[in-house]
Formats: sequence, C-alpha cells, structure tokens
Amino acid sequence: MMSIRISVQQDIMQGNNDWAEHNRTIFKTNDVFVINMLSSPGAGKTSILESVIPQLKHKLQIAVVEGDVYTTLDAERISSLGVRAVQINTRGACHLDARMINEVVQSLPLKLIDLLIIENVGNLVCPASFDLGEHCRVTVTSTTEGADKVEKYPEAFQRSSAILLNKIDLLPYLSFEEDQFELAVKEINSTASIFKISATTGEGVPQWEEWLMNKTYQNTE
Amino acid sequence: MMSIRISVQQDIMQGNNDWAEHNRTIFKTNDVFVINMLSSPGAGKTSILESVIPQLKHKLQIAVVEGDVYTTLDAERISSLGVRAVQINTRGACHLDARMINEVVQSLPLKLIDLLIIENVGNLVCPASFDLGEHCRVTVTSTTEGADKVEKYPEAFQRSSAILLNKIDLLPYLSFEEDQFELAVKEINSTASIFKISATTGEGVPQWEEWLMNKTYQNTE
Repeated sequence: MMSIRISVQQDIMQGNNDWAEHNRTIFKTNDVFVINMLSSPGAGKTSILESVIPQLKHKLQIAVVEGDVYTTLDAERISSLGVRAVQINTRGACHLDARMINEVVQSLPLKLIDLLIIENVGNLVCPASFDLGEHCRVTVTSTTEGADKVEKYPEAFQRSSAILLNKIDLLPYLSFEEDQFELAVKEINSTASIFKISATTGEGVPQWEEWLMNKTYQNTE
Repeated sequence: MMSIRISVQQDIMQGNNDWAEHNRTIFKTNDVFVINMLSSPGAGKTSILESVIPQLKHKLQIAVVEGDVYTTLDAERISSLGVRAVQINTRGACHLDARMINEVVQSLPLKLIDLLIIENVGNLVCPASFDLGEHCRVTVTSTTEGADKVEKYPEAFQRSSAILLNKIDLLPYLSFEEDQFELAVKEINSTASIFKISATTGEGVPQWEEWLMNKTYQNTE
C-alpha cells in the first residue's frame, strides 16, 4: 500500500505542476502579474489587502482569488472595496492547488487585469508545497505568532519573494525578538524583501504597496 | 486515477482509525488521560503548557508529545520545566497521525503517567481529521487571530471538549468581538467549555488547570 501511496502522491504533485505551467502560460498571454499569499490563520492577509487595495485600485486593475476551507467572508470583505473577488471553498482541503486556480481564472476578464492576488487557505504547512503558477510568493507572519515561525515552518518562507511581518503596532505589548526574526529569514532566504507593517495603523503599508506596483509594472514592460 | 486517490484516502483514514483504537486500548490499560491540543501556528499552545505545568507537575505525573514539522524547540522548552517531553518531527507532514503517536508512546513509562498532553502541529485544518486515540481534544485560538476563526475552521472546534481563547491580555489593543466568538462557538459546539486565558499574565490559567486536573482524576477513578 505504501508504494501506491507514494506513487499517488507523486502523481498529485506532477499533476499540480502541469496545471501550474498551464496557468503560467495563461498569465503570460494575458500580461497578468500574479502573487500567491500564504500565512497562518489570522495573520492578517485579508486586512493587509484591505489596507492597500483602496489606493492601488486607482493605479492598477486588480482581482483577488480568495481561498478558504469554508465561508465567503473574505471574498465579501474584498468585494466591498470595489474590486473583483472570486471565492474558492476547498471544503476541507487544506490548500489551493493549480487546477482550482485554473478553473476560476477562466471566469475572470484577464485581459483587463494587471494584478491578480491569490489569498491562499490560512495554513503555513501544506500550501507551501503547491505551485499555483504565480510569479511571486508572498508570506505573511505576524508579531503575535512569535519570532520562531520562520525556523519552524521554513518551506513557506524559503521560496518567498517578499515576507511581510504584520501587526507591528502590537510590538510594545509583546516580547517579539525582531533580530531573531530577521536573522532567521536571512538564513533561509537571503533575497526576500522584508516589510514590517501594520494593517491596522497603516505603518509600512506604502512601502509594500510600492513593491507590489513596481513588480506589476516590470511584468507588463 | 481519481478512484485510486479516493481509495488511498479512505485507506489512510481507516488505517489511522485502527491505530487510534489501538492507542485508546493502551491508554486505558495504563490509566493515562490523554488530550490532543490543536491550534494555528503561534496561538500559544507551548506557552499555555509552560503556564500550567509548573503547578500541575506537583499534583500529576505529566508527559508531553510535541508535534512539529521541523525543529525540537518546543520539546526543549517543555523539558526545561522538568517533565518528560518527546518530539515528533513530521518532516513536511502537516499533522500528527495515530501511528506516530503509537510509536512514541512505546518509549514512555505509561504506568507512571497520569496525564499525556499531545501538542499537535500548528495547523487548524489537517490535524482536525486525525483521531489520535485521545480522550479530549482541546483547541486553542488567540484574540489576535480574529473572532471569525471558529466559523472559518469549524472542524477543529466542533469536536473539542475545551476551547481556549488565549492572549486576552491584548484585548485592549484589538477590535476582537468576544460576543461574536462565543456565539460562533455555541453554534457549532454547545457543550465545549470555554476558557479565556493569557499565558503571559496567567489570567484564567487556574480555571483551565482545574478542568484539566478534574478530567484526569475522573479518568483514574
């Protein structure tokens, strides 16, 4: 049975990679820049989007794919900002895969979209193994989770182009070790851009917004 | 291929249930009360254990199984409290399963242990599907994650005997809706005991400690 399990696992990963390549071609053909956002539940992915989209939507055409196990809460929050949001409910599955993305992007007017943001299921483990065909992975962690998360969940951080440390407004009330966090990031991913932000107060958000805008412009050049 | 996937999935779950039953027999034979703690990464499972074990270890013989994807950080923290801690590294797997537990409990002097605490991998999705043979599931969530987590990740909360809301010391700095949280819990799990605690200040910890002690005593009666 074990050999069947391993071969099914390999088949799932290979199947996912094929769909991811297919997505990459679609995104390239349509000049869409795509990011895949990962984090623990409650690290603030949706709040961060709520803090950048109101400005960014005047400069770029944005669409958001919301991945959740259940509920449409996050897609409703994003829709209310006046950008297109599509919800994927995985119904118990712990991550988005490239085929799910392929299905929903068919329904989007990709030719009109500059930036597609995929908000993955809140989970620092499983989504890290699934390429969705994105250009950049962005991993969010928050000060309240503790500085050891990079070391404990390395795969999510290893392949990220940007790492967002959210909830810096709470630093005065925590014993979060900023040096430990930055050292841990540098050790496993020396090229990632680190942004320290607060979706609540807006601190650091303009820098992250600029990064996102530059990356999107570079893609369409 | 899909039918093979489904049958492998069924086989994995059935295999897990068989091991869970086997564990249950071992725990019963040895009069060990076992809890399985679930939460997001960084919700504070280890900190909560650090806040109860120093008192509890004088009343009960305790052992802890630490589940992590990588690292032995948590087992080291628990060992330093003077109780037995065993680390399981899942090496990429997103949850503990009953067979992993079966392997490590063989190395523990179960006859001498009253309370075995299993700290699962930090993940609110996958661990919820795997019975480890425990008596009680305890799910931890924290105020900083937001009050919508019960609704978004219902499976972890549905079958819990106790639900711990940690980091209540940060409530003054957050817009966490306590009523929304309690209503959501009552809706999906009307019998769970709710404990509002702070592992940092110790608030609410004695109540949770008492629950744990009573449950353990009831088991050995």
